[in-house]
Amino acid sequence: MTATTPADLWPEVRPEAARRLLLAAVESFARRGYHATTTRDIATAAGMSPAALYVHYPSKAALLSEISRTGHQRTLALVEGAAAEATDPVRRMRRLVEDFTAWHARAHTVGRIVQYELRALPPEDFAVVAELRRRTEETVRALIAEGVAAGVFEVDDVRTTARAVLSLGIDVARWYNERTAEPPEELGRRYADLVLRMLGTRPVA
Amino acid sequence: MTATTPADLWPEVRPEAARRLLLAAVESFARRGYHATTTRDIATAAGMSPAALYVHYPSKAALLSEISRTGHQRTLALVEGAAAEATDPVRRMRRLVEDFTAWHARAHTVGRIVQYELRALPPEDFAVVAELRRRTEETVRALIAEGVAAGVFEVDDVRTTARAVLSLGIDVARWYNERTAEPPEELGRRYADLVLRMLGTRPVA
Repeated sequence: MTATTPADLWPEVRPEAARRLLLAAVESFARRGYHATTTRDIATAAGMSPAALYVHYPSKAALLSEISRTGHQRTLALVEGAAAEATDPVRRMRRLVEDFTAWHARAHTVGRIVQYELRALPPEDFAVVAELRRRTEETVRALIAEGVAAGVFEVDDVRTTARAVLSLGIDVARWYNERTAEPPEELGRRYADLVLRMLGTRPVA
Repeated sequence: MTATTPADLWPEVRPEAARRLLLAAVESFARRGYHATTTRDIATAAGMSPAALYVHYPSKAALLSEISRTGHQRTLALVEGAAAEATDPVRRMRRLVEDFTAWHARAHTVGRIVQYELRALPPEDFAVVAELRRRTEETVRALIAEGVAAGVFEVDDVRTTARAVLSLGIDVARWYNERTAEPPEELGRRYADLVLRMLGTRPVA
């Protein structure tokens, strides 16, 4: 079960039937895996006929693409928003890790699909997602480099460190369980502490 | 394609046909996902008949269980081996992270299956794997706690930090690509540097 509602994840999707299909697809992919899920499974989970599904999405792949694209857009928006705040690099990195980690905890069911079914995307949709991922990584690298230049971070290898920062947050979707783990916001704060240590953070001058 | 050979991963498995079936299962699960793979797919990939497969493994689930159990045993052995070395906690943690990270880079195809198909395991096999995972996490927690007691680590939350250490290494299996990333051993050294920072390492007295 996802801990997020379709309204949280796809507030802009209309009509309601399309939104219901996205949620049904998420639950079906999470239960059976993408390859073993049929459009009939998804339609049934949404309380609709296969024909009614095709009114909104031409294929199972179109549903996966929509889930993956919107998930990547959402996390890129979090990362760019944190990186653009009018504060110092340490506070911006703290916000970035808090928000990115909490998102992957709250939306862990969607996060797993978004991360693990990349290779199932049609090539043109994969290209869009790859560009969103590239921008996300580039934003984190630029923020680390800015902190190094300002003398508040001390980092040996910006590329590997940026990948580690994102990897920690992404992997939350794999292991997070709302019954046994700390709440998403608390986990975000703890992970931000760990990441700022990884970055060799010094007091802001 | 896996970057490890069946001989590396299952040196103890005899006869050769059984080992070939394990490799074929890894490649088939990686390509199609576990649920969409049939025993016929696996037999064909191994150059065998379905009947010949059943001589060695009673089911697709039995192959997944063998892959998952041996993968978890291998990583637990690495972790316990590093934690038991006759050196200080800092050096032992460095070795642990280097070996754990390099394993997930080298065996990333197997690592993905081991991590992402846990819920497809039959309950009794899942219980075995869950126990191996519990011991792995407990070993890392104990080593961190030992370093804190010795005054060489400074950690706010041992449980969350131990999970982050393992999470960083496990997620390598998701993103690692031998064509674009640093070699496994180099990545292991860089990750060990990052983890020792996360642990607030101080010079060993």
